Amino acid sequence: MANTNAPLPFFSSCDVADALQVLRKSENLPDMESAGYVPDIHLWSPQFKAGNTRVFGPAYTVEMVPITNTSAPKLSEHFADTIPEGSVICISQPENMVNAVWGGLMTARAQFRGALGVVVDGRIRDLNEQREAGFPVFAKATSIMGAGDHTRASRINVPITMQPNKDHPAVTIHAGDYVVADADGVVVIPKDLLAKVEAQCKKATAIDDQCMAALKTGEGIAATFKKYRG
Amino acid sequence: MANTNAPLPFFSSCDVADALQVLRKSENLPDMESAGYVPDIHLWSPQFKAGNTRVFGPAYTVEMVPITNTSAPKLSEHFADTIPEGSVICISQPENMVNAVWGGLMTARAQFRGALGVVVDGRIRDLNEQREAGFPVFAKATSIMGAGDHTRASRINVPITMQPNKDHPAVTIHAGDYVVADADGVVVIPKDLLAKVEAQCKKATAIDDQCMAALKTGEGIAATFKKYRG
Amino acid sequence: MANTNAPLPFFSSCDVADALQVLRKSENLPDMESAGYVPDIHLWSPQFKAGNTRVFGPAYTVEMVPITNTSAPKLSEHFADTIPEGSVICISQPENMVNAVWGGLMTARAQFRGALGVVVDGRIRDLNEQREAGFPVFAKATSIMGAGDHTRASRINVPITMQPNKDHPAVTIHAGDYVVADADGVVVIPKDLLAKVEAQCKKATAIDDQCMAALKTGEGIAATFKKYRG
Repeated sequence: MANTNAPLPFFSSCDVADALQVLRKSENLPDMESAGYVPDIHLWSPQFKAGNTRVFGPAYTVEMVPITNTSAPKLSEHFADTIPEGSVICISQPENMVNAVWGGLMTARAQFRGALGVVVDGRIRDLNEQREAGFPVFAKATSIMGAGDHTRASRINVPITMQPNKDHPAVTIHAGDYVVADADGVVVIPKDLLAKVEAQCKKATAIDDQCMAALKTGEGIAATFKKYRG
Repeated sequence: MANTNAPLPFFSSCDVADALQVLRKSENLPDMESAGYVPDIHLWSPQFKAGNTRVFGPAYTVEMVPITNTSAPKLSEHFADTIPEGSVICISQPENMVNAVWGGLMTARAQFRGALGVVVDGRIRDLNEQREAGFPVFAKATSIMGAGDHTRASRINVPITMQPNKDHPAVTIHAGDYVVADADGVVVIPKDLLAKVEAQCKKATAIDDQCMAALKTGEGIAATFKKYRG
Repeated sequence: MANTNAPLPFFSSCDVADALQVLRKSENLPDMESAGYVPDIHLWSPQFKAGNTRVFGPAYTVEMVPITNTSAPKLSEHFADTIPEGSVICISQPENMVNAVWGGLMTARAQFRGALGVVVDGRIRDLNEQREAGFPVFAKATSIMGAGDHTRASRINVPITMQPNKDHPAVTIHAGDYVVADADGVVVIPKDLLAKVEAQCKKATAIDDQCMAALKTGEGIAATFKKYRG
């Protein structure tokens, strides 16, 4: 499942967001109103919203439910024991819960399984353990409460919905969609669009590089955009 | 009042939160719905939510009121002049106020008095001064406005209520309750539970250490939890 | 327009906020209820709310509107091509929009134009590029979405309104007002008050220095304030 040789990691979350924005218009994708962007999910480890950490890989989705929900499906195995190598763990936590759904022990298991990182629409804990492990952890916020008495994993590899910010359309992540996450943020690429996103990123970043070079010599931004973006 | 030889500082806020969660069930503590956790109070100094800073000590509580509230009690001394040695200053600021209730001069006085740190359900300022002083400062947010025209200390060593996040039950802090605060967050231990929390932390962290060692050798998380947590 | 020799940069945002608070009473300024403070605009570059970065200069104001607003005025030039040397770019973004209105290319142009920094009541992106450029960037939050499909600059050098926190009065920034921004926050000085703010800052920080020295020798805070603040 992993494809760590893919060139996409060399593109940033911002580059990918730009590409999806272009594609959603050129490809007429009405269900891509979000352009794949999951706002206000922050990089917490190895550093808070800093450094060159970039995660790129297929999503392994985990749906959490409140522990009080006894009717939702149950898993036969612990979700952390079935993390695929090379995957990015994507977890949806019910909103308005303040417990963590990810901590130091989960990271130890995820690293052994070969996961690339974890993206949580919710809360995580054990910041120092995460950082010492060097594991890329993205989440809305932190907590000190464990999950045990509050949430449980109900299903894996089902489409999950993330909407950490109500001013932006929800993003549905399907297992196998590609996740790009770095200090700037998190974006999800529908798997069918991967090749097109890559091609668009290549084209646009080449243009951006030309623009940047021009701006650094003092060319105007309007003139630069006209010249290179057309 | 201080007890800096207590072993509890070696346990993290997450460990203590876990212990309180266990105890509130085993001891049937109906008024501990919050499990002592004060969410969304962040470590701002010496570093933002990073590093090994850990505060542990008895609470010295300070209740702030809006300056417009002239009927609330008044203090005969400045609250900073009566900070007990070895205490953790806990301040409740009326919600929705954007001024700081703690700054660089307060830290200078608190350090001279021998306080271990300050926890504010509200705002603080003078980040660089706090950091240069190396004083542990926890707060909901920062500000640049001083307190003088906005809030005043009304009472000390009375129970104060902190509820920085409406999705979590309020936490009432009594003078002498124990506060544990680090990069992950803030938790308050009712003083009568201190010995039990310590015993539970010892037991649980020993188990966690066994789990972590097992996970690092590749044992499954379900098997590990079954083996060590039972 | 720039006045980088002004002594004011040696005063912090907190010092300036204190001075404006004093002046709004002594000068009876009914329209200064905000005291110029723009809460919850954070320093993101070169570091997140840390370091000695301090921006001081006259505001160059930019009003953004939603791209869907076709009736609002249009600019004849790109707003980044008319940034004055020595200015602080101040941008108001319509609230509840999650796209960035400032990114790496804008910074390259702004630096060439000689801007001192940018303050955004909204979102910015390209954190690593901003930091590598060493450009001071202040904003409410970050994003990965570009502005192109979401917002556009409508007017420059008109009064703009910033209100990132609804619990605090809006701040109106006029072109040429002075902005002071550092790790603690952002404050705006009406240009007519600049000399008075400077005088008040000098007076108050001299007193603060005396208070700090006294506190460090163990004098009480009540006694210290009485002695030096009167």
